Amino acid sequence: MPFTIAEIAQSLGVPFEGDGSLTVFSVAEPASASADQLALAMRPDFAEGLTQGAARAAMLWQDADWQGFGLSAAILAPRPRYTMSALSEMMDPGQGYGAGIHPSAVVDPSAKLGIDVSVGALAVIGPDAVIGDGSVIGPQVQIGWQARIGANALLHAGVRIAARVTIGERFVGQPGACIGSDGFSFVTPEKSGVEKARASLGEEGNTASQSWARIHSLGSVTIGNDVEIGANSCIDRGTVRDTYIGNGCKLDNLVHVGHNVMVGEDCLLCAQVGIAGSTVIGQNVVLGGQAGVSDNLVIGDRAIIGGGSGVLSNVPAGRVMLGYPAVKMDSHVESYKGLRRLPRLFRDVADLKKAVSKLTGND
Amino acid sequence: MPFTIAEIAQSLGVPFEGDGSLTVFSVAEPASASADQLALAMRPDFAEGLTQGAARAAMLWQDADWQGFGLSAAILAPRPRYTMSALSEMMDPGQGYGAGIHPSAVVDPSAKLGIDVSVGALAVIGPDAVIGDGSVIGPQVQIGWQARIGANALLHAGVRIAARVTIGERFVGQPGACIGSDGFSFVTPEKSGVEKARASLGEEGNTASQSWARIHSLGSVTIGNDVEIGANSCIDRGTVRDTYIGNGCKLDNLVHVGHNVMVGEDCLLCAQVGIAGSTVIGQNVVLGGQAGVSDNLVIGDRAIIGGGSGVLSNVPAGRVMLGYPAVKMDSHVESYKGLRRLPRLFRDVADLKKAVSKLTGND
Amino acid sequence: MPFTIAEIAQSLGVPFEGDGSLTVFSVAEPASASADQLALAMRPDFAEGLTQGAARAAMLWQDADWQGFGLSAAILAPRPRYTMSALSEMMDPGQGYGAGIHPSAVVDPSAKLGIDVSVGALAVIGPDAVIGDGSVIGPQVQIGWQARIGANALLHAGVRIAARVTIGERFVGQPGACIGSDGFSFVTPEKSGVEKARASLGEEGNTASQSWARIHSLGSVTIGNDVEIGANSCIDRGTVRDTYIGNGCKLDNLVHVGHNVMVGEDCLLCAQVGIAGSTVIGQNVVLGGQAGVSDNLVIGDRAIIGGGSGVLSNVPAGRVMLGYPAVKMDSHVESYKGLRRLPRLFRDVADLKKAVSKLTGND
Repeated sequence: MPFTIAEIAQSLGVPFEGDGSLTVFSVAEPASASADQLALAMRPDFAEGLTQGAARAAMLWQDADWQGFGLSAAILAPRPRYTMSALSEMMDPGQGYGAGIHPSAVVDPSAKLGIDVSVGALAVIGPDAVIGDGSVIGPQVQIGWQARIGANALLHAGVRIAARVTIGERFVGQPGACIGSDGFSFVTPEKSGVEKARASLGEEGNTASQSWARIHSLGSVTIGNDVEIGANSCIDRGTVRDTYIGNGCKLDNLVHVGHNVMVGEDCLLCAQVGIAGSTVIGQNVVLGGQAGVSDNLVIGDRAIIGGGSGVLSNVPAGRVMLGYPAVKMDSHVESYKGLRRLPRLFRDVADLKKAVSKLTGND
Repeated sequence: MPFTIAEIAQSLGVPFEGDGSLTVFSVAEPASASADQLALAMRPDFAEGLTQGAARAAMLWQDADWQGFGLSAAILAPRPRYTMSALSEMMDPGQGYGAGIHPSAVVDPSAKLGIDVSVGALAVIGPDAVIGDGSVIGPQVQIGWQARIGANALLHAGVRIAARVTIGERFVGQPGACIGSDGFSFVTPEKSGVEKARASLGEEGNTASQSWARIHSLGSVTIGNDVEIGANSCIDRGTVRDTYIGNGCKLDNLVHVGHNVMVGEDCLLCAQVGIAGSTVIGQNVVLGGQAGVSDNLVIGDRAIIGGGSGVLSNVPAGRVMLGYPAVKMDSHVESYKGLRRLPRLFRDVADLKKAVSKLTGND
Repeated sequence: MPFTIAEIAQSLGVPFEGDGSLTVFSVAEPASASADQLALAMRPDFAEGLTQGAARAAMLWQDADWQGFGLSAAILAPRPRYTMSALSEMMDPGQGYGAGIHPSAVVDPSAKLGIDVSVGALAVIGPDAVIGDGSVIGPQVQIGWQARIGANALLHAGVRIAARVTIGERFVGQPGACIGSDGFSFVTPEKSGVEKARASLGEEGNTASQSWARIHSLGSVTIGNDVEIGANSCIDRGTVRDTYIGNGCKLDNLVHVGHNVMVGEDCLLCAQVGIAGSTVIGQNVVLGGQAGVSDNLVIGDRAIIGGGSGVLSNVPAGRVMLGYPAVKMDSHVESYKGLRRLPRLFRDVADLKKAVSKLTGND
């Protein structure tokens, strides 16, 4: 896809300097860029590579001395990382899924496909499913009975949408994402060892064997607009009502969202995050990679949970949390520093005991 | 599916009061229930919503004042959460997978399918596979060479059962579950850095580069009756004998079970649990979400491992464990409280040092 | 597959003793071996089972008294675990995927398949994909536009290789592995709460709501020779250049490798490991199960990160790390011991305070 520097700058709404008619076909890192690529050097330390590569044009930060790097043209972005969003959209060649309904796809006659929907090879679309205009259904995708997907969705290969799931507009599903698996909800005829251990804070579990009866998930999953779900991530359906993911949420790979969970708008759930059943997550919450949140908790708006942390209690709005169990970040850092200095503390106390023992004459 | 209150109560084996002829079509939470839904309010704090919703009937706890909530009928369950199991089974509309063998499925002529087996669109059933009566094989499922699955299985979309896996009756596989991937077993010609670090408890690793030779997994996986495996979970095959999952075990989403692992009956493995190779798990063990168990360990019957914990040593029967490395829950709580109070302890010791220094005159 | 003991020993390059003409068909653990199986007892404690089983031949350690176990023949391996690699390869019956291109597979006419490539039922091979000689493409695999896979690959059922991914020779992909999902890269118009919290080490997050703009992944994934990727693992594509996995790396199940990550040669990434974006991993690094590495870090060659550890800072070469945040293993062990002894320390300090208080007369 050839673009002139002037076209790119105009499309991104940022200024350019130099030869706006210069044409580029793709983007590259500075050191490996060829003459017809746009080098990306969004911070001064990245710009060093420009002299090693052959780029004639680059996207740089706002006040960059582009001529000093020997360039013929430069796009100068006030917040280059943000501008990268629109630039990368322009330059993305995509996955090359074909247009139209592939003849090998199995589309139930009762499914309703909008205008310009494409369906890839060997996809399965179930009875009464509804797919909005302009959606791209990749190869080997499965969409269940009565599932509803809004306009302009992009479902990559092997995404699975179970029965009665409802998804808003502009949804992106990475390969193997699974929306609408059954909740993990089992019950014993009598109180289980877990119920007892929770009630007693750790008293030993049961002595008798117990087997588990299944609670079926009668709810489904509702997902808002502009949501992305990562590769091989799983969103379980609710027990009675739907599990809910709000508008603008982005979930990374291998994330687990349990039954009945409610996630507010614009949350980021990084890779391998797990949220146990019935927990409520506020708006604009960020969960770092591998963070876990226990069941039936409330996480306030704009909370940030550090990667690898385990949240075992409610979190107030705006709080930055770290550790296991997760605590306020500065408390964690203080405890952690103390932990590192413990060996010295043990020596100090041993010395004090000797000194005091001498003073009291109890030797 | 219309049911009268009397029918439901009879089927569940619990009493009802009021108008048993009242008909409901599905279940709902109290506040959002319509007049033809059965509201579920299994604890007093859930019942408040009844006045906001339009339900005329509800399932409540044993001695609930159902008339006080303005209902016409009520099902009164002694342990409502347990009764929910049978109720949810009655009310589950399912995934709508069709009956019979879908013409797009690829079923090897040597595969043996029992009576009333259904096979979904684009499923693949390999040579000499055996599938028990009444099993439902969802769309895009893959069942390998000589795999054997018992009666009344439900394999959701995209489940993969590898060659020679043996599964008992009433198995449930959530979408994307993978049974029988190869074990992660690699060996170096000379002792590896890991072997050395384990032997020396942390002495630095190797200085020479090493590459890894693959040990093939000649065993497979054997799974008992009444087992459920969650979405995108993986059970590796054994090296020489089969990896084993006992009767009644329930595994949540994104769980990893390594090669040669043996899991006893009726265990719960919550989401994102990982069990490393050759570990033996007893009966009725519960592993909380994201818990990990190291290789070659023994976890006793009825042990409960808290979510996010990392088990690095054997666990006796009935023990409740928490933390990393996991220890007895009350030890963890005590250590953790100490950690929180460490800053004060450092101040106390500093004060003591000053006081003692004054006393001894060493200032 | 029948083999004589002499054939096996010759093929493995290790000596045998006794009746080399004895024939075995498969391998077994000592206690369950039948008369025509080769028992594997690679350590003295495993050999006890030989008397319970019916094996007439076994693979044992170098100086084993095989006649004392009542055997007719024995293969004596200097490093039996290493010899197991070649033996298991000989004895592996495989998954039974058929030869040739299955008629139900959807192979784009522009795809280039090498000599002796087999393609399983319902696989999809996209336009301009290139697959090397002797590769086995399992059922329901998907290979994207312009993806290139080297010779002798083995892609198990449901592997997904996205567009423009490049993979070397002898690649093994376990079921459901996903190579080339989009990176998790989102940006806010203004500085995000995470950026602020990182800059301030934990100052509270934003007060205003923010939504996320997507940065498309214009790079792809490059994978070297002799790499194995586990079941349902995910490797994200890079933002501008490719994410990179070096020769000889082995990744277990449910592993996440973020965008732009570079992994050096011969690394082991155990199950459920997560590596965040742009981190660089050296050669021969071992990451234990569930370990996590934060973004933009450098992990030195031959480092070993214990299972469940969370790496939040750079790691020098050869270092053995444990804990959260991960520290040198012996520091972690020392801190941990201190933590366990904390309750006693609190008592000691309380006693000292009393004693000092008496001495100073401030009671």
